[in-house]
Amino acid sequence: MSLIVQKYGGTSVGTVERIQAVAEKVAKSQRSGNQLVVVVSAMSGETNRLIGLAKDIDAEPCLREMDVLVSTGEQVTIALLGMALKKLGVEARSYTGSQVCILTDNAHGKARIQDIDGHRIEADLEAGVVVVVAGFQGADEEGNITTLGRGGSDTTAVALAAALNADECQIYTDVDGVYTTDPRVVSRAQRLDKITFDEMLEMASQGSKILQIRSVEFAGKYNVPLRVMSSFEEGPGTLISLEDEDQMEKAVVSGIAFNRDEAKLTIRGIPDQPGVAYKVLGAISAANIEIDVIVQNVAKDNSATITFTVHRNDLTQAEKLLKQIATDLGAQEVDADDRIAKVSIVGVGMRSHAGVASQMFESLAKEGINIQLITTSEIKITVVIEERYLELAVRALHSGFGLDAPDPEQG
Amino acid sequence: MSLIVQKYGGTSVGTVERIQAVAEKVAKSQRSGNQLVVVVSAMSGETNRLIGLAKDIDAEPCLREMDVLVSTGEQVTIALLGMALKKLGVEARSYTGSQVCILTDNAHGKARIQDIDGHRIEADLEAGVVVVVAGFQGADEEGNITTLGRGGSDTTAVALAAALNADECQIYTDVDGVYTTDPRVVSRAQRLDKITFDEMLEMASQGSKILQIRSVEFAGKYNVPLRVMSSFEEGPGTLISLEDEDQMEKAVVSGIAFNRDEAKLTIRGIPDQPGVAYKVLGAISAANIEIDVIVQNVAKDNSATITFTVHRNDLTQAEKLLKQIATDLGAQEVDADDRIAKVSIVGVGMRSHAGVASQMFESLAKEGINIQLITTSEIKITVVIEERYLELAVRALHSGFGLDAPDPEQG
Repeated sequence: MSLIVQKYGGTSVGTVERIQAVAEKVAKSQRSGNQLVVVVSAMSGETNRLIGLAKDIDAEPCLREMDVLVSTGEQVTIALLGMALKKLGVEARSYTGSQVCILTDNAHGKARIQDIDGHRIEADLEAGVVVVVAGFQGADEEGNITTLGRGGSDTTAVALAAALNADECQIYTDVDGVYTTDPRVVSRAQRLDKITFDEMLEMASQGSKILQIRSVEFAGKYNVPLRVMSSFEEGPGTLISLEDEDQMEKAVVSGIAFNRDEAKLTIRGIPDQPGVAYKVLGAISAANIEIDVIVQNVAKDNSATITFTVHRNDLTQAEKLLKQIATDLGAQEVDADDRIAKVSIVGVGMRSHAGVASQMFESLAKEGINIQLITTSEIKITVVIEERYLELAVRALHSGFGLDAPDPEQG
Repeated sequence: MSLIVQKYGGTSVGTVERIQAVAEKVAKSQRSGNQLVVVVSAMSGETNRLIGLAKDIDAEPCLREMDVLVSTGEQVTIALLGMALKKLGVEARSYTGSQVCILTDNAHGKARIQDIDGHRIEADLEAGVVVVVAGFQGADEEGNITTLGRGGSDTTAVALAAALNADECQIYTDVDGVYTTDPRVVSRAQRLDKITFDEMLEMASQGSKILQIRSVEFAGKYNVPLRVMSSFEEGPGTLISLEDEDQMEKAVVSGIAFNRDEAKLTIRGIPDQPGVAYKVLGAISAANIEIDVIVQNVAKDNSATITFTVHRNDLTQAEKLLKQIATDLGAQEVDADDRIAKVSIVGVGMRSHAGVASQMFESLAKEGINIQLITTSEIKITVVIEERYLELAVRALHSGFGLDAPDPEQG
C-alpha cells in the first residue's frame, strides 16, 4: 500500500462538475490500494472575487484580515470535495490548514511552513479515511490564519508529503507532464518520463510555469518524489526526483526553456573604478527591480561595459535610473532593448559531458542567430538573442540535442 | 467603561457599503468609551449560495462537511469588517468560532454551545482592540467545525456576553425595537423601552420574529441584558432584562402577539376511555408534527372531543393521520380548519392583576368576535379565532389594554 498526496489546482476544481470528477479520480486511486491525502486550491475565480471585496473596502487591506478572507476559498473546496467523496461512498474528512496544524511563520500573505503535525492525518489514514486538506494556508503560533501566497497549494502538498513520508506527491494540472520544450513552439516536443529536481528548477526559473519554484525546492530538499499529471486525461505524467544514474546518463540535455519576459539594458564607457558593478546594480536593486542575467566587460581603454536584463514591466523605470547613474559615473551611454529573448538548455548530463556549450553555439550559428549574452550554471547554459529568432533557436536546439519525437509521418 | 457585545445580522452586513456603515457604528461606540466585541452573520444571500453548491453535489450532503462549507460565510464577513475597522483607524482583530474556543457538542448543523474560553478576547479588549467574532459557529472537542443552526448568531452573541460578563448584548436588526404589536396591523403600536425575558419569550413563540427564542432563553438564564436596536437608524431600542419592579408595575399587558401559521384539527365523539388524549396526540407527534394549542372536553354522553393546532404546512398529513385514528377509536368525525388565527396578550403584570382574561374576552365580544379555543400561561392568554377577524381583534386588544400611542392628530 502506497501513501500518496494528490494536489488539484483551481482549474481542476473550478466547478461542481469538476470537483465531482476529482472525487472519481481520488476514489479510483483509493480502490487500487492507496492511502490518500488530497490538497485542493480555491475554485478558479474565487480568490479574485474575495480580493475584489477587500479592495472595495481598502486599496491596501490589512494583511492579517486578508488571510482570514482568502483562506475561505480553499475551505469551500475541501467541504465540497468531502461531500462528493462521501456521495461516492468513500469515507473522507476535510481539514483547514490550521486544523491539521500546518504551522507557519506570521508573514501574512507569504508565510512559510515551519512544521506539520501529521498525527491527526495519520490516524484518519489508518482508519481508511481519505483526508482532504485546504492548500495555501496554515496558522502561526498564536493560531492566526496565514496564507502561503500565490501557488502555495503546491507547497502545502509537498510539505504534507514530506511530513507524512509519502511515497509520491502528485500535482494534477492542465498539462499531462513536463515537456522537453513548449509544444506550441516545437511540435515534436516530448513529454519527459523523468527529470531531476535540479533540472526542473532550472526549467521553472526559465519560464516553465507548470510548478511553483518553491515547491520544487521543497520537494528536492526533503527528497519527495513529485509527479506532474493531467487532471483531465489519463497518463503517467512526469516524475521529478533525485538523480538516477542509469536513467540520466542517456541524454545530455533534458529540455529547452525560454522566455520573452525580459528586456536588456547596457551602460557603456564607465570610467574604470573599484566597485563599479555595485554602483550600477545596487541602485537598480534598491528600487526593488529584479535583475537576471549580468555580464561585465572591460574595453581596451579600461572603461567598463555592464549589460543586464530586467523584467519588461520594469524597463522604463530601470532605464530612467540607469541614465541618472550614467551621469553620476560619467559613463558614455545607456542602451535599452526590449526585443530580446532568453533561451536555455538544461540537463544534468552537462556535468559529465564536455563541449555542450560549443555544440549549442554551433546550432545557433548554423541558423545565423547572433548571441548577445551568455551565462552558464552547472546544469544550464543560457543565451540572450534577438526575440524574432526565438522559435527558430528553440527548434534548432531541440533538434540539435536529439530531443525531437520520432516523425509520425515516417511511422 | 462598559463591555458591550454587538451583533449584526445578514441584512446589516449584506454589502460592502453596509459593512462599512457597521464599522462606523462600532467605531463610534468605541470612541464613547466602550470595550467592544462584535458578532456578525454571513452577508445576506451567501449562506444560500453555499447551500446551493452543496445541493448540486448531494441532495443530502454530509453534515460535517456542510458545516465546513457554510462557516466560511461568516468568516468572509469578519475579515471584511476587520479591514473596514482598520481603515477607520480602529485596532481590530477577527476570529472564527473555533479560534476563540467556542466549544460545542458535535451535532453538526444544530450544535449547542457548551463552553467559551474568553481569555484571548479579554487580552485583546485590555489592549484596546475591537474583537470581531464569526457568529453561528464553533468547534467540537476534536476541533471539527460546527454550526449552531439558523439564527445561531444571536446565540453566539449572548453566549459571548455571558462568558465575558458583558454589561449589555446589543442585537442590531432591521427594526428599531420590540413593539407592543406589529405596526403593520396597528398603526398606533409603540416601541417598548423595556420588556422582560419571559415576556419576550412569549412574544417570540407567538410569532414575533425579531429574536431567536433560543438566544432569549440563553440571555434569561445567564441574566445578560439584551437590547434590540436598528442597524439603520439611531435610537435606544428595546432593553430585554430581568423583571424590574418599578418599571413593570405600570402596564398589565406589555404586548399583543399573533400568528396565522396554524391550522386547527378537531376529533369528536371519541368513546370515553383512559388515555384517549395520548392515543390521539401521540400518533401525531410520532409523525414529527408539532402540536401547539390543545383543548379537550367531555360531552354529556361522556364522549370526548379533542381540538389542537398544528402548523399549516402539516395540516394535510395530520388530517390523514387523524382520520385513521378516528376509525381506530370509533370516533364520530374529524374536522380540519386552516382559516384560524392565534392572538395572545402577554405581560408579567397579569400575575398580580385579576380579571385580565375577562377583560380580554370582553374586548373581543364587543367586536362580535367568537373565541374558538383558549389557553393560558402565567403571563400570557391565547385565543384562537377566525382568521378574518385577526386585525380587528389585535386592534381591539391593543386599544383595550391601553397600548395605543397618543393620537398624533390630537398633538
